[in-house]
Amino acid sequence: MSLTRNQIKELRSLNYRKAREERGVFLIEGIRMLREAAESDFTFVASYYTESVRDDPGWDALAAKLKKRAPLVPITAGDLDAFADTVAAQGVAAVLKHREIAPESVISNSAGRSLLVVLDTVSDPGNAGSMIRSSDWFGAAGVVLGRHSVDLYNPKVVRATMGSLFHLPVARDADLPVLLSKAAGAGYTIYVADVAGESHFDRVHYENKSLFVFGNEAWGVSDQVKELAQVRIGIRRYGAAESLNVGVACGVVLSAIHRLYDE
Amino acid sequence: MSLTRNQIKELRSLNYRKAREERGVFLIEGIRMLREAAESDFTFVASYYTESVRDDPGWDALAAKLKKRAPLVPITAGDLDAFADTVAAQGVAAVLKHREIAPESVISNSAGRSLLVVLDTVSDPGNAGSMIRSSDWFGAAGVVLGRHSVDLYNPKVVRATMGSLFHLPVARDADLPVLLSKAAGAGYTIYVADVAGESHFDRVHYENKSLFVFGNEAWGVSDQVKELAQVRIGIRRYGAAESLNVGVACGVVLSAIHRLYDE
Repeated sequence: MSLTRNQIKELRSLNYRKAREERGVFLIEGIRMLREAAESDFTFVASYYTESVRDDPGWDALAAKLKKRAPLVPITAGDLDAFADTVAAQGVAAVLKHREIAPESVISNSAGRSLLVVLDTVSDPGNAGSMIRSSDWFGAAGVVLGRHSVDLYNPKVVRATMGSLFHLPVARDADLPVLLSKAAGAGYTIYVADVAGESHFDRVHYENKSLFVFGNEAWGVSDQVKELAQVRIGIRRYGAAESLNVGVACGVVLSAIHRLYDE
Repeated sequence: MSLTRNQIKELRSLNYRKAREERGVFLIEGIRMLREAAESDFTFVASYYTESVRDDPGWDALAAKLKKRAPLVPITAGDLDAFADTVAAQGVAAVLKHREIAPESVISNSAGRSLLVVLDTVSDPGNAGSMIRSSDWFGAAGVVLGRHSVDLYNPKVVRATMGSLFHLPVARDADLPVLLSKAAGAGYTIYVADVAGESHFDRVHYENKSLFVFGNEAWGVSDQVKELAQVRIGIRRYGAAESLNVGVACGVVLSAIHRLYDE
């Protein structure tokens, strides 16, 4: 029932990028995340549970699924606390392998609708996670994180996706100029969100194949990427705030793209 | 140049609600926040700066303004680190008095346009802050935090407002059923954001006087408040996410209210 000191140390190290990259794995916590992961194509290395989770009415069904994926290991609440990132681990955690998706693979070559969302150096984990969640909600075909964005497998990013990481392809470490050129070649229109964007998000006729780039919290989208954009989208301001949170801006823009099709 | 141990302890205690309430003050950090505060009607108790901030080109002008408000105290970088909540304090911090705004005071009695945003038990500081920021961006006349929301003067909330706390009236500790009844009496239409809301945010004709309520991250808007709503607003889902982040949902809904007037 007890993990060794070394095992705990190894699990706890997964809160750091270096250890995650070396081993190619990451940590998820909480009933909901494990449930979503169990329905996904991610590879489980191991799952851990404490006595308390047995009270959860859905636990038996989930446990059966987890067992088919990888060893399901009973541990003490103290051991879980010693490596989990949150108090919200709710008695369960799992180690999954990174899913490495080639950024170009999210590009569609057919003529049908395809919405892609690209994060260019988004640095706040909560923002990156909520942007993946919003992309999922608004039906994106995939999300791509640029080379200088926060790490996709940072526990705070994973948690803020609220399971959406397991719903759609999310690629990382992309060379954005290369990706954007390929997307443009495949027929995508490249939209860049910019505080000074001249096209109000609400007045743009979004194309069937649309790729949206959102930038850094402080500096926006990098110049190199901006040059590759066909349309710079802005959100009109009515008050005194200097800018919108980038996660909010992402949701606002994505909420508008379906309007024309819905009408 | 050095603060006493007791002074540091007192400043550090402002990261806790209990200490803030007892003394009726809160802490702000960073050049930008101090600059915005200096333009506002908040009352300064003291400002602190370290040697490093003198390199900032705008410092002399800001320092002159701060001095007029309250004592401007030189401190060591070590002292600042010892009480500041972030590494991003950039060499400056200040203690301000709480600004207590009666929730009803944000209600307008005239017939002109007035947009109010209400947070019903929003618990994540980053969400609450970004909602105040979005409310400011989209021209709200005021924001009200319900009795069970995260504390407005939590340093993470203050920081996430990115200065918007200093741009518009933000009331807290409101008894929401009382507030909503008064607003309805003054001619406001009450809109509640709800995952199951039957009115798509994009199809609603928003009234001149509109009050929007956003709920808790996990449970949404409380039943008692929902009953007082005239319209339940939803955001159509196109993918598999279970919900949107509440800060994102707030931005999406507010982004739509100006459309009819702009056209």
